[in-house]
Amino acid sequence: MFKKNIKIPIEVSARHCHLSQDILEKLFGKVYKLKELKQLSQPSDFACQETVDIKFGSREIKNIRVVGPIREKTQIEISLSDVASSGIMPPIKLSGDLSGSAGAILKGPAGQIEITEGLIIAQRHLHCGTDEAQKYKLKNGEIISVRVAGSRPVVFEEIVVRVKDNYKLCMHIDTDEGNAAGINKKGEGALYLLS
Amino acid sequence: MFKKNIKIPIEVSARHCHLSQDILEKLFGKVYKLKELKQLSQPSDFACQETVDIKFGSREIKNIRVVGPIREKTQIEISLSDVASSGIMPPIKLSGDLSGSAGAILKGPAGQIEITEGLIIAQRHLHCGTDEAQKYKLKNGEIISVRVAGSRPVVFEEIVVRVKDNYKLCMHIDTDEGNAAGINKKGEGALYLLS
Repeated sequence: MFKKNIKIPIEVSARHCHLSQDILEKLFGKVYKLKELKQLSQPSDFACQETVDIKFGSREIKNIRVVGPIREKTQIEISLSDVASSGIMPPIKLSGDLSGSAGAILKGPAGQIEITEGLIIAQRHLHCGTDEAQKYKLKNGEIISVRVAGSRPVVFEEIVVRVKDNYKLCMHIDTDEGNAAGINKKGEGALYLLS
Repeated sequence: MFKKNIKIPIEVSARHCHLSQDILEKLFGKVYKLKELKQLSQPSDFACQETVDIKFGSREIKNIRVVGPIREKTQIEISLSDVASSGIMPPIKLSGDLSGSAGAILKGPAGQIEITEGLIIAQRHLHCGTDEAQKYKLKNGEIISVRVAGSRPVVFEEIVVRVKDNYKLCMHIDTDEGNAAGINKKGEGALYLLS
């Protein structure tokens, strides 16, 4: 591997969920609309005021943050630490790919619903704007590695590059990966390419 | 970095604690002796039947496994996931080095005691027997890297080599690091050396 001189901002994604309008209404009531709490680093995404309780296997986690906007499919992203001893093992999947994902029960103030798929461990990925992709010679779907220095230095491999007009350069990892690299919420890495 | 053709067994250390005789007696009673539950991979170490409850900051974790034999100093090894939102941030330390470590309250069937140091996040390390060190040209205190292939490939850097006659080749990482590398309990890596 050789290092490209490109600094990669890193964010740790805490457990969260994306809801479809249908599921949102079952949990929060008819014609409900998500309330924005905070804009996130990807311009299209925002943390919502709403949280839901989620049960899978023997474990229930309360107050999981909803991330808006509404999506076509409901998706819950948790960590392997979250599923330890729960009896459930969701697959590691790229956001949006729910084939083979696990089911869960979601509870909101207006009701609860069981979904048969949607629970995943998010695969590490790099968001990248179209202009940034051009600048750094990165392609959508490309696999890269990122090295994190600091107290627990690590090279993360098999990071999938996701290019879209409205994305902003940022690598997303989950809390286990953040902890393993000594990153609390935000950090920085350096891009490596396979030689 | 270049790869040496050496396979490294990896074990994920779940949270656990080592007790001094003094603290053991405060928690379990006078002249108490640890009861072996299971031999561990390092020939000198064994999991005990005993567990203790440990409180630090706003968090209490019940049934933390005691690992024997008795040590000179009490030491509790937990993960960064364990301390999230607890208000306590123990340092990442090599086992045995408790300078600057955090305090905690330990509770056992016969009593409880507050210690002012002993709570750490264990630094990743490689146990290595003296004969293995000779065979693989590794030195005590040397810093190595280990690559883990699989579903979440990662290169762990800054792994401290610890050589002792009665050690057996095995890298120890904590649950966050295991989860970040897709390793559940046991796995395998390959040794890298800095070129």
